[in-house]
Amino acid sequence: MNFKDYIRVVEDFPQPGISFKDITTLLKNGEAYHQAIEEMRKLVKDLKIDVIAGPEARGFVVGAPLAYALGVGFVPIRKKGKLPYNTIEARYDLEYGKDVLAVHSDAIEKGQNVLIADDLLATGGTIATCVDLVEKLGGNVVGAAFLIELSELQGRNKLPNINVFSLLTY
Amino acid sequence: MNFKDYIRVVEDFPQPGISFKDITTLLKNGEAYHQAIEEMRKLVKDLKIDVIAGPEARGFVVGAPLAYALGVGFVPIRKKGKLPYNTIEARYDLEYGKDVLAVHSDAIEKGQNVLIADDLLATGGTIATCVDLVEKLGGNVVGAAFLIELSELQGRNKLPNINVFSLLTY
Repeated sequence: MNFKDYIRVVEDFPQPGISFKDITTLLKNGEAYHQAIEEMRKLVKDLKIDVIAGPEARGFVVGAPLAYALGVGFVPIRKKGKLPYNTIEARYDLEYGKDVLAVHSDAIEKGQNVLIADDLLATGGTIATCVDLVEKLGGNVVGAAFLIELSELQGRNKLPNINVFSLLTY
Repeated sequence: MNFKDYIRVVEDFPQPGISFKDITTLLKNGEAYHQAIEEMRKLVKDLKIDVIAGPEARGFVVGAPLAYALGVGFVPIRKKGKLPYNTIEARYDLEYGKDVLAVHSDAIEKGQNVLIADDLLATGGTIATCVDLVEKLGGNVVGAAFLIELSELQGRNKLPNINVFSLLTY
């Protein structure tokens, strides 16, 4: 299956000059969505994974079904103020601004093997922050998996010691 | 499996007097999360479903793996301004304020059978708005499935013609 046929490119979103990769056209197709998650599962199947962590909100539509497919837990990484219990936080630069990400302080046990999952690897700022949060909790980041990698933006360079897996590269 | 053992109740979040049902303690447990989605799949298995639609962000951690398990598409319903393509919008009252939800105008084809999925049925305002958006696009809402229903808040009354399925009731 050529998954790129199901990705819609929207020009100038969210800012002029950005070619936004819209995955909703893939998600709404049951066969394409299922196959994409299945292929991502195969990419990471040799890793020992205890839990998947992913940033809101698009990270959830990739990380949550991947966790289900692998039979592992899912840890939501959210914008500040959204999680109800004690959290740790990290400030970060994202592609189009700044923000604060948070995770529950008891979300990951020391020594657990964690896969980070998101829809898109762009500049890598969001994912580097997720890695930072997971490692602060004592988690061992065994890899990072993406539906799409924008290779020109060299996000991998922000993740020097991380195994990066991408289903599609632009 | 007694799923309620995995739900953490956080008092006074996000406002004083609210007993917040924190599902992250269920999500992070691989077996509990997988079983919960599997039980939800069984609840809706006799429906004819083409696509699942769910509101961000917690709706994604229920709706996306359920879509994967059923092999159907997933349509994200998002806060205004988050979706890149043409949208239709609806203003609504939510449990703790007001907001605007949006969905891509080509997300659902006329006559498609749609299951709405979310983590929680509370007052029903968010879900009634999701039903409204789906029906405006010509979708046929065949049901609404929740991990948790807060029965005291009588959210079902806001969904008079909808089959409601809940895994857990408080």
